[in-house]
Amino acid sequence: MDLQDLKAILAQYKDGAVSLDEVILQFKQSPFDDLDFAKIDHHRGIRQGISEVIYGEGKTDEHILAICQNMLSNQQKNILITRISQSTADYIAAHIPVDYHPIARLGIVGKIPEPTGKGKIIIATGGTSDHRVAEEAALTAEMLGNEVVRLYDVGVSGIHRLLAHMDVIMEAKVIVAIAGMEGALPTVIGGLADCPVIGVPTSVGYGTNLGGVTALLSMLNSCASGVSVVNIDNGFGGGYLASMINHN
Amino acid sequence: MDLQDLKAILAQYKDGAVSLDEVILQFKQSPFDDLDFAKIDHHRGIRQGISEVIYGEGKTDEHILAICQNMLSNQQKNILITRISQSTADYIAAHIPVDYHPIARLGIVGKIPEPTGKGKIIIATGGTSDHRVAEEAALTAEMLGNEVVRLYDVGVSGIHRLLAHMDVIMEAKVIVAIAGMEGALPTVIGGLADCPVIGVPTSVGYGTNLGGVTALLSMLNSCASGVSVVNIDNGFGGGYLASMINHN
Amino acid sequence: MDLQDLKAILAQYKDGAVSLDEVILQFKQSPFDDLDFAKIDHHRGIRQGISEVIYGEGKTDEHILAICQNMLSNQQKNILITRISQSTADYIAAHIPVDYHPIARLGIVGKIPEPTGKGKIIIATGGTSDHRVAEEAALTAEMLGNEVVRLYDVGVSGIHRLLAHMDVIMEAKVIVAIAGMEGALPTVIGGLADCPVIGVPTSVGYGTNLGGVTALLSMLNSCASGVSVVNIDNGFGGGYLASMINHN
Amino acid sequence: MDLQDLKAILAQYKDGAVSLDEVILQFKQSPFDDLDFAKIDHHRGIRQGISEVIYGEGKTDEHILAICQNMLSNQQKNILITRISQSTADYIAAHIPVDYHPIARLGIVGKIPEPTGKGKIIIATGGTSDHRVAEEAALTAEMLGNEVVRLYDVGVSGIHRLLAHMDVIMEAKVIVAIAGMEGALPTVIGGLADCPVIGVPTSVGYGTNLGGVTALLSMLNSCASGVSVVNIDNGFGGGYLASMINHN
Amino acid sequence: MDLQDLKAILAQYKDGAVSLDEVILQFKQSPFDDLDFAKIDHHRGIRQGISEVIYGEGKTDEHILAICQNMLSNQQKNILITRISQSTADYIAAHIPVDYHPIARLGIVGKIPEPTGKGKIIIATGGTSDHRVAEEAALTAEMLGNEVVRLYDVGVSGIHRLLAHMDVIMEAKVIVAIAGMEGALPTVIGGLADCPVIGVPTSVGYGTNLGGVTALLSMLNSCASGVSVVNIDNGFGGGYLASMINHN
Amino acid sequence: MDLQDLKAILAQYKDGAVSLDEVILQFKQSPFDDLDFAKIDHHRGIRQGISEVIYGEGKTDEHILAICQNMLSNQQKNILITRISQSTADYIAAHIPVDYHPIARLGIVGKIPEPTGKGKIIIATGGTSDHRVAEEAALTAEMLGNEVVRLYDVGVSGIHRLLAHMDVIMEAKVIVAIAGMEGALPTVIGGLADCPVIGVPTSVGYGTNLGGVTALLSMLNSCASGVSVVNIDNGFGGGYLASMINHN
Amino acid sequence: MDLQDLKAILAQYKDGAVSLDEVILQFKQSPFDDLDFAKIDHHRGIRQGISEVIYGEGKTDEHILAICQNMLSNQQKNILITRISQSTADYIAAHIPVDYHPIARLGIVGKIPEPTGKGKIIIATGGTSDHRVAEEAALTAEMLGNEVVRLYDVGVSGIHRLLAHMDVIMEAKVIVAIAGMEGALPTVIGGLADCPVIGVPTSVGYGTNLGGVTALLSMLNSCASGVSVVNIDNGFGGGYLASMINHN
Amino acid sequence: MDLQDLKAILAQYKDGAVSLDEVILQFKQSPFDDLDFAKIDHHRGIRQGISEVIYGEGKTDEHILAICQNMLSNQQKNILITRISQSTADYIAAHIPVDYHPIARLGIVGKIPEPTGKGKIIIATGGTSDHRVAEEAALTAEMLGNEVVRLYDVGVSGIHRLLAHMDVIMEAKVIVAIAGMEGALPTVIGGLADCPVIGVPTSVGYGTNLGGVTALLSMLNSCASGVSVVNIDNGFGGGYLASMINHN
Repeated sequence: MDLQDLKAILAQYKDGAVSLDEVILQFKQSPFDDLDFAKIDHHRGIRQGISEVIYGEGKTDEHILAICQNMLSNQQKNILITRISQSTADYIAAHIPVDYHPIARLGIVGKIPEPTGKGKIIIATGGTSDHRVAEEAALTAEMLGNEVVRLYDVGVSGIHRLLAHMDVIMEAKVIVAIAGMEGALPTVIGGLADCPVIGVPTSVGYGTNLGGVTALLSMLNSCASGVSVVNIDNGFGGGYLASMINHN
Repeated sequence: MDLQDLKAILAQYKDGAVSLDEVILQFKQSPFDDLDFAKIDHHRGIRQGISEVIYGEGKTDEHILAICQNMLSNQQKNILITRISQSTADYIAAHIPVDYHPIARLGIVGKIPEPTGKGKIIIATGGTSDHRVAEEAALTAEMLGNEVVRLYDVGVSGIHRLLAHMDVIMEAKVIVAIAGMEGALPTVIGGLADCPVIGVPTSVGYGTNLGGVTALLSMLNSCASGVSVVNIDNGFGGGYLASMINHN
Repeated sequence: MDLQDLKAILAQYKDGAVSLDEVILQFKQSPFDDLDFAKIDHHRGIRQGISEVIYGEGKTDEHILAICQNMLSNQQKNILITRISQSTADYIAAHIPVDYHPIARLGIVGKIPEPTGKGKIIIATGGTSDHRVAEEAALTAEMLGNEVVRLYDVGVSGIHRLLAHMDVIMEAKVIVAIAGMEGALPTVIGGLADCPVIGVPTSVGYGTNLGGVTALLSMLNSCASGVSVVNIDNGFGGGYLASMINHN
Repeated sequence: MDLQDLKAILAQYKDGAVSLDEVILQFKQSPFDDLDFAKIDHHRGIRQGISEVIYGEGKTDEHILAICQNMLSNQQKNILITRISQSTADYIAAHIPVDYHPIARLGIVGKIPEPTGKGKIIIATGGTSDHRVAEEAALTAEMLGNEVVRLYDVGVSGIHRLLAHMDVIMEAKVIVAIAGMEGALPTVIGGLADCPVIGVPTSVGYGTNLGGVTALLSMLNSCASGVSVVNIDNGFGGGYLASMINHN
Repeated sequence: MDLQDLKAILAQYKDGAVSLDEVILQFKQSPFDDLDFAKIDHHRGIRQGISEVIYGEGKTDEHILAICQNMLSNQQKNILITRISQSTADYIAAHIPVDYHPIARLGIVGKIPEPTGKGKIIIATGGTSDHRVAEEAALTAEMLGNEVVRLYDVGVSGIHRLLAHMDVIMEAKVIVAIAGMEGALPTVIGGLADCPVIGVPTSVGYGTNLGGVTALLSMLNSCASGVSVVNIDNGFGGGYLASMINHN
Repeated sequence: MDLQDLKAILAQYKDGAVSLDEVILQFKQSPFDDLDFAKIDHHRGIRQGISEVIYGEGKTDEHILAICQNMLSNQQKNILITRISQSTADYIAAHIPVDYHPIARLGIVGKIPEPTGKGKIIIATGGTSDHRVAEEAALTAEMLGNEVVRLYDVGVSGIHRLLAHMDVIMEAKVIVAIAGMEGALPTVIGGLADCPVIGVPTSVGYGTNLGGVTALLSMLNSCASGVSVVNIDNGFGGGYLASMINHN
Repeated sequence: MDLQDLKAILAQYKDGAVSLDEVILQFKQSPFDDLDFAKIDHHRGIRQGISEVIYGEGKTDEHILAICQNMLSNQQKNILITRISQSTADYIAAHIPVDYHPIARLGIVGKIPEPTGKGKIIIATGGTSDHRVAEEAALTAEMLGNEVVRLYDVGVSGIHRLLAHMDVIMEAKVIVAIAGMEGALPTVIGGLADCPVIGVPTSVGYGTNLGGVTALLSMLNSCASGVSVVNIDNGFGGGYLASMINHN
Repeated sequence: MDLQDLKAILAQYKDGAVSLDEVILQFKQSPFDDLDFAKIDHHRGIRQGISEVIYGEGKTDEHILAICQNMLSNQQKNILITRISQSTADYIAAHIPVDYHPIARLGIVGKIPEPTGKGKIIIATGGTSDHRVAEEAALTAEMLGNEVVRLYDVGVSGIHRLLAHMDVIMEAKVIVAIAGMEGALPTVIGGLADCPVIGVPTSVGYGTNLGGVTALLSMLNSCASGVSVVNIDNGFGGGYLASMINHN
């Protein structure tokens, strides 16, 4: 029941075409979802005309294609499909044009829109092995209408690399700091910057990195203020939240 | 070495009063901290005229008082002191006026400033036992110049309580969702709201709540986008980050 | 020694055909199992004429087939075989007719019986990736003589999807709530429904979902009453217990 | 907005007293909670005339007393107050009559009602140290209108103690099996009984019992079907769910 | 330096052929290992004429063969090789006769010796999936000169199966109780038997069995006395220790 | 129903005094416990005339005294009471003579009996902080009729202390090796001795000793054969099992 | 048997006063410890004339005093006693002069010796709460003959504080980096310095710091080379190892 | 900006060619890294003329080759490439000569240099399965200019093997002790040696070895002083730190 339906049934009721009990029954049966009180689809919160997102993991190729085609037929021009393999991308590409980014494992239908956010999002990484997650974050943020600055390979074991880019850090609106191993990057950046820092722990490392849990714990215990954390390897989550803050 | 010092030494060097080697030695010995390239004190990032924050835990009464007095003598009018006991507050109060908030375990010197943020910060809790952490978050945000709306006791086991306040949720600029036990509140709110949601897990519960780890894990695995997490019971961190986003 | 044997030996003893010592020896050597005091086979507790269950995991194809054939020769008409692969199903199908359900990884010999329970069992899931476990639960419950209502993809990040089905939830006799990630579904349903809710955590997710442990912990700490939990991915256990409650 | 309000506003709308937009605004602002679509209070699910429950932990004495008095003034005759100390009970007793059960740490206002369930609930424990949790479960079930049979101290290290009570076990409608240490009791009972078994792990033990986590894990991995589990030491949860099943 | 060497050097010293300092230097340089004070090889502790054991895991085929040949040339007649694959067994079999037991993943060179222990060792398992570990234990014990009684598939969810074999349990000298899932078997057996019970947890199960950790924890917290535990899946360790106790 | 009862009812049945159905009913109702098929009390397995054991933890003073008095009146002369405080011991001593051992927190009624085991039990510890657990093990073993040799403070960080007592180790029938911190003692002793070694991890240490879990894990992964493990700080369990092996 | 004993017995043997078998028996019985082949006391490895160390935790006041007095009577002038309370220090001080350091919880008998190491040891901390551990490390190192530079409160959330002391860091021989919370300090220092860095995690923090485990894990996964780690709060271990490296 | 650049810009400033603001801007933009205040590259800390190290894991073949070629063109003669497969080594070998060590999974370009350290580094292992990690440590140390003594297979379950090499242990400058399973080797060696011992836990084992965590925990809790620990399987880290200490 959308707004139109609501108006229609109320009109019918006023006209006597439906009884009071029938109106109440209608409300009981679809009390909430279609009244547009809340956002129906949590991806729709992002401004229309920008992008829709499909989380590809665990969906079949056919399923993903169908969702894409449905979106396109609903005037959606730009679609971001996360966590898909090359072969899934190939399957989609046989039907509709899609750009596949193998490092980020993302497919893009349409094109990256013009930035609409208030400032720049910095995506910083500790090492080369974090690029996979970083690109997921960066492309997500770009597809959601943000200007992204990539600041890769500035891990804290060589702090000068980070300090050499203080100008970039100081002008960020929000920073996504991505690191595996000991996960110290968000803390050090959080101590230097004065904007929100989103820590994304990665599963990069071995032994006691415990699949990224060590980096996660480290970030949660950051001695710097203004740092929050998302799930391990959740580049999409980092980019999405950064965009939300940048458009807030 | 601040900007004035830098200019002074460069002037001296130009005048020949100091040699090239002496200039270089100066740089080597204090290369960074006093040049104001970065924020010297991570609390200073918050706009002047608002508030300074002292993390009280692990500091002696004398130490806290001395920091307060130093700040006051530096024209700082409003000071937030977190994680102190009643007796510490009493000790301080014997020297300078301080308001103690026993639930939040916070002391406030001066007064809560006028809001300067862009919108409202919602502090939501799952149950009455989370109030301690919630008040720490709320008072922190208020001291940092934010309008705060308290939405307490809206835990997801009675979802109607939350839905009854959809209007409040929909107009938030940022939401701090605080919950112990199964920690589902940020997820449900994250699915309803279209602003950033900061999850603060609390140690409320028993048995397998594992001192708050369960709530934390639950929040990190939220199936809603736009949710990030800070450390267990870290109300200050939640309020601080919310303020940062609200002033961004 | 079944009831017949017991009567036989007692008769022989009365007739003097066996001595008192021999009777006592008989009791000592098989004191318990065959007297039918307790249920010999924990699957037999389920009413005769309905179904038998074979847990396929870790059994060889030959072993499973032999058990099936033995059951069939003992007048068992409907057999549920859980956790088998397509190839095992094919092996069995070469000898006796079997319907294989690839999503649930279940084979059914015979057919799903008419419902004999007191009411409806709702199988609810948080997302599409939980279907595998949900179908194991649903088909198990159906094979044990229950009417099952599938309520899939009603995860709490879009609470309206769940609320739109309040009528279904309110008329359930028992609900199996299946979710991975943050595992909040049983809590939210437990707060809405007034029947027992069985939480089945799934291993769906990544990083700190810890193979389903996070969803499990979340469910165990549910702030809603009337919620209990079974092992991760244990769809069979959820369906079995739901049937037990529905036939209680 | 309750049903009366809904009818009223619809009547006003039909009469033209309020506009269509005003009706819609009303729905937006109080969409759900007061329409009685769902149960407002999750304790209300339990049949009227039986009992209300107050979870005492973390509530002040004054708060608990006020809730009791409010319930009594609303014609509620029997009230169960869980997890309160002797001193809290004394405080309440100074105002209204209350029976305090020190082992279970429960207070009862009014009296235990006549059983209304379909059969008997068995509360079984492994050892004497589990009595505290068992009594919480037993008194909860009794206050919710159930006949309870206590089967204490039948731990599996002396299996004959359990087997000696097969008749009791075989006639149960639902069994709450409470055990610490290795937590094997629900499994053994689950193999003997043909009704639902609710495992309640307790924190009884030392070293690698890990505060009850070992018993919990053991129960979750039970090789018997029909066993589900609640949080560690959650006697109330076990008794509540047992009552729900017994009244289902 | 063996006993002969020691006597030789002492003789030389007495004769003046070597100086006091040279004798002392000899002792310093090989102070311990060759003096036969302790057992040189921990497998040699087992009585000569019985068997030697090679732990195959992580050793190359060539390495294992070489050790076998060396043992055979040293009059060792019976050799047990644990944790080897069929292909390793085939490699060895091309050079020396070896019997491979695929379930236990053991190879036997020579033959199982006559029992020399004081009594019988019972190897009991909870379910069919534990056979792999059980056979490793059983064959190890047999190769070390013990009479072994296999009591498989007597899991506690059907306690009558275990009780039906009380006579076997009561006459055991030592029992190896092997179980996965909730690991309750050693506890129940420990409560019935009056001989040492060695618990061997197995990794059989899924979800919260945590790769056998749950069974292990359960066994360590056994409420029965006389139960001790070895590492997960360590059938060899269970059989070896049982043999040690049986020959003590 | 004991053996006499069984014979009586069978006689009555033969005489026609009771019907077949009545006999069967009798068996159904008390099928097992009183037939003496299994040991009724797991402490009774220890030879009469030696000692009975009361596990004091969690029992009230009155309860413990009553059990003692009951035992004494049943001709039991020597009683071991574990895990009691000085005040409990004082309470008992006011009624019956008892020797309290404050380090082991054990009380002894009667006296330590003459050894009846086959050989010596060695109780070895890593450091002085392990004495508490060691004395519990040693006194338990002595009360159960064993000759005990205490080999304290032979931790592996000074391996010479251990090697200096090789003669003691070599003549042991069974060794209880007790250690906290890194828990290496059972492994090193297991490599030197040729008898069963029971590892008892203690909670001695700090930080990553994790309350004894580290010592436990270390012992479970011992690279020496013939080592098994009991729960953390379980000196009683170690002494009890050692006695069982020594009397086997 | 020390060197003198060895020479004596060999002399007796040469003279015929003892037989060959008697010599061999002597060796068997005390094969190792007194021959001075290895260091008898692991504290003695530190050069004579410097200091002896007593680990006070778990020792009685009387025991500690007795050890001190024994050392003093053996010409030991300087003694370090770690982990003792003020009251223990007072007890000792009643008999022999001792300086107590309450922050480090150390007592010093005699005085801190002149440095004998090759260079300077830097003790760096992340925050004021780490001072307790830092002082234990610093005083340990000083008592073992090292020049110590304290670099306190240089946590990585304000990286400029650390960078301002690059000259100190660059001239260190070994650095002990002490930090709680996210434990990033050793990594950042390890990236700046070119000497060994010993990380000492502290239990400073709350929630997911897990009693110091998070800081420990972070340090173990350091992306900087040359960093190793000791146990949580083990200031003594850090100072001891630093001294060992500085004297190597 | 290196020292030359700094002098140049200061000269220009003195000459008036650049303004004061321009000088300050220069400092702001590259404040730190190129001024050579700290070590630019943490691998450069190792003395020139010895070796450079490339961490191969996670780098593409092309990337590794390019780095090698760049180093060679910068006069670097000896390069160590860790954690590469045979196929990567083959790829590099097609362009520049490289020696591949399959056990250590290391490639060496150039040759192992002459030792320049102060003494010998001992690499000790517990068992044959630890060789992989040990060779990584040994070759790393050799490439960094150290004399290495390999002391393999001296696990503590056969302590005589270790004691037989006391002379080697006593003359070490630093020892890398590598062990899986119970990880006791560093403790035993730490008790015998008087030089720093670096523990390297390995993931060798099964069940409760928890992928090396057990060995790690054991080493962290070592009751011997002078022992520190690096990450699981981190042979490179052990060898690198040993070299640092040996060249200190």
